[in-house]
Amino acid sequence: MAQKTQTSPAKGCRDFLPQEVRRRQYATRIIRQVFEKYGFEPLQTPTFERLETLLGKYGEEGDQLLFKVLLRGQPLLQGIRRASEYLSQPGAIVTGRSGETAPGAEMLLADVGLRYDQTVPLARVYAAYQAKLPPVFKSFQIQPVWRADTPGKGRFREFYQCDVDVVGSSSLSAEVELGAVASECLTRLGFESFNIRINHRVLLRAIVQLADVPETLEAEAITAIDKSDRLGIPGVEAELEKRGVDKQARMSLLSLVGERPSLERIKRHVAGHAPGRQAVEEVEAVLSLSEVTPAARRFAFDVSLARGLDYYTGCIFEAAAPNLAVSLGGGGRYDNLIGMFMNRRAPACGFSLGLERILVAMEEGGLFPESLDHLDLVVAACRQQEQRAAIELAAKLRSADRRVELTLNAMQPGKLRKYADERRIPMAVWLEPGESERASLWTRADGSIQTGLSFDQIILLLTRRAQAV
Amino acid sequence: MAQKTQTSPAKGCRDFLPQEVRRRQYATRIIRQVFEKYGFEPLQTPTFERLETLLGKYGEEGDQLLFKVLLRGQPLLQGIRRASEYLSQPGAIVTGRSGETAPGAEMLLADVGLRYDQTVPLARVYAAYQAKLPPVFKSFQIQPVWRADTPGKGRFREFYQCDVDVVGSSSLSAEVELGAVASECLTRLGFESFNIRINHRVLLRAIVQLADVPETLEAEAITAIDKSDRLGIPGVEAELEKRGVDKQARMSLLSLVGERPSLERIKRHVAGHAPGRQAVEEVEAVLSLSEVTPAARRFAFDVSLARGLDYYTGCIFEAAAPNLAVSLGGGGRYDNLIGMFMNRRAPACGFSLGLERILVAMEEGGLFPESLDHLDLVVAACRQQEQRAAIELAAKLRSADRRVELTLNAMQPGKLRKYADERRIPMAVWLEPGESERASLWTRADGSIQTGLSFDQIILLLTRRAQAV
Repeated sequence: MAQKTQTSPAKGCRDFLPQEVRRRQYATRIIRQVFEKYGFEPLQTPTFERLETLLGKYGEEGDQLLFKVLLRGQPLLQGIRRASEYLSQPGAIVTGRSGETAPGAEMLLADVGLRYDQTVPLARVYAAYQAKLPPVFKSFQIQPVWRADTPGKGRFREFYQCDVDVVGSSSLSAEVELGAVASECLTRLGFESFNIRINHRVLLRAIVQLADVPETLEAEAITAIDKSDRLGIPGVEAELEKRGVDKQARMSLLSLVGERPSLERIKRHVAGHAPGRQAVEEVEAVLSLSEVTPAARRFAFDVSLARGLDYYTGCIFEAAAPNLAVSLGGGGRYDNLIGMFMNRRAPACGFSLGLERILVAMEEGGLFPESLDHLDLVVAACRQQEQRAAIELAAKLRSADRRVELTLNAMQPGKLRKYADERRIPMAVWLEPGESERASLWTRADGSIQTGLSFDQIILLLTRRAQAV
Repeated sequence: MAQKTQTSPAKGCRDFLPQEVRRRQYATRIIRQVFEKYGFEPLQTPTFERLETLLGKYGEEGDQLLFKVLLRGQPLLQGIRRASEYLSQPGAIVTGRSGETAPGAEMLLADVGLRYDQTVPLARVYAAYQAKLPPVFKSFQIQPVWRADTPGKGRFREFYQCDVDVVGSSSLSAEVELGAVASECLTRLGFESFNIRINHRVLLRAIVQLADVPETLEAEAITAIDKSDRLGIPGVEAELEKRGVDKQARMSLLSLVGERPSLERIKRHVAGHAPGRQAVEEVEAVLSLSEVTPAARRFAFDVSLARGLDYYTGCIFEAAAPNLAVSLGGGGRYDNLIGMFMNRRAPACGFSLGLERILVAMEEGGLFPESLDHLDLVVAACRQQEQRAAIELAAKLRSADRRVELTLNAMQPGKLRKYADERRIPMAVWLEPGESERASLWTRADGSIQTGLSFDQIILLLTRRAQAV
């Protein structure tokens, strides 16, 4: 069996040792509890989906970033032969952003792909189980997704997303509920000064149209505006120019966006544009209805917020902690996506909390409890002869629902106390040589040692302590 | 976007709708809490590992059952060309149990593979983070694994395992702790009549040796004995004969195994065989030390228990509920495996609960609580005009930590009560037309309706009810 192998995890992936698992579980437990408190229901989908389910849903770049799983057995042998023939055809190989690829060849060699996001699986599930699901399905998913991206600081190939979605309702109450549930999650996680920027896709289009940007350049213009946070107004102007938006339209657009207008100001601006006016009214309604929820005073209208993904159709949100300068999550209404497997429209609105960024921000902000330790005490025998009594004491304490580690080998009291101290275990108990019914107890908080305690006394002490905490 | 696609999950995989997720979470929460109570620490490893980490660890069949992930970009193109050349070589294609394959070609096309079990990743982690981990590392892992097996009843390509392991200790206290933690898990899950069969690999070898089975056939003979549960003694005899064990050895072996001997009887049988005697003493010690733990009276010595996997080196266990006739989990000591990435021996002992079988057995045994519902009530407005008040009431109740669903559209009281009744939500509250400060409350248990309640009265009612429960 002896061999020498690389022992680090696969590229872009992470091992989570106990302390890290506990921190991740602390955060996901809070998020899950809040989601459930708002009546959202848990959903879990398989790690891999048929390739046909995934391909074409995330754009050309997304198709390339999918992890695809190799065919097995005979189909693989056929696939290799066909892929090899395929490669010899002119045009089979294309050069894209991530180097040379042959998308057609991949299809001959793979049958399933790893989950790339949680929205496409949600759409598939909503289509597959319509009869079993309520007409308005409020679901949440807390699962890993995989992308074959180049790993970098804070960018992993395996990472978690926390999605909460309302499918089957066009009511603005969905937006209100999502703002509320996201706000309560962030508050309970310990974030104090976050806000949620809000805008509306139809309003953005109205503004672009009112600036006389040609229809064919609308999407490009919105993409450029989306970058104003990073590039500033001059940067956006350069982008717009590069994309072919003429000077007058640029000036018209940027004079408005540049002044960071209030919703009132924008309302006057789009007064003559019916869809734009309705979009403003929708944002107003969401803001007004949110006044009585945990999202009150969190929402901030921002006309430059566009959210990268094309698929949004209505209100869009983005949560950020100003002192951290990263987005903690975002979402919006996307009425044209969930119906993709049903040949009909299914309105939907969602919010996704970026767990990995949230964990980094919590670490930086000191938002984790000082101790996520889980043990009440550690029990040891001084010599192997007392191990049976140590096992018995541990069993008794566990029957009383105390959380107890038992050392598997005999351990001297000094070494035991050092072990407990290093691992922040609040108490240590040991059986002195010859003892089978009495033990000594050390308390980490004050360093005190009590000797000659009966097992019942120790249980009583610990139960009292647990009740006091 | 409109297209028609297969909406079922990928072959051998399952979607878990809310009720199923809750049941799975109910079981895993209990298991995790018990593991933590015994001082085992959570570990999470990536979904995929480098292929070199996985290959050769699970035998030839295991290598074939690994899900391998396709290379991306330029390396894939090179891989296809090289795999195609490789296939044209004589002997590249082999015919195995699952059809024609070319293992060498797979290596040219894939770089990582999906987790096949949790033991190899544990060995990798133990080697990679020795300095960070305690010398005796007590870990647990509750994660999915993937095997490209032919799906069948109760056999999936994605399924969960709950592994609990002690690494770095040769003490029999490890076996005792694992028996105790597994017993407490099963008890807390609601199993009453389970037992844990126990045997010892060295004892099995002693028995085979004492029956004069030739050394080269030892492993084969043990494999045959392992099947006595399914095949009965005549079946095992046929197996032994097929494998070339001569008649006298067969008779000698089966006359012993067939009488289902007690540990006392076996002790006398191996009295003259030093390793066998020591193995009996180890089993005796585990049984004796377990008398004071939750495993007391659960252990049953069974000389025919062999556990399929070759890697066990000491005590072996298998938990089963007699009325269910399936194993709920098993494990044992495996001292030669965990060190595989370190070029040194690392003693280890583990127990794995088979979550999927446990869930099926819990379902069949009616062991899930009648309701895993999570909501306290549902709030609705009778008309859209009262939606704002409904949002406000929902927010107030949630501030008081009640779990509240808000209907996103207005709903008539009759329809609302029907909705709540079908979803087993214990209470429903609605705002009558024109009301913004008072509401009506329906209780599912007795069908009663109280009208004209102020929001504070409703909160008080619910808080009292929660305290009473």
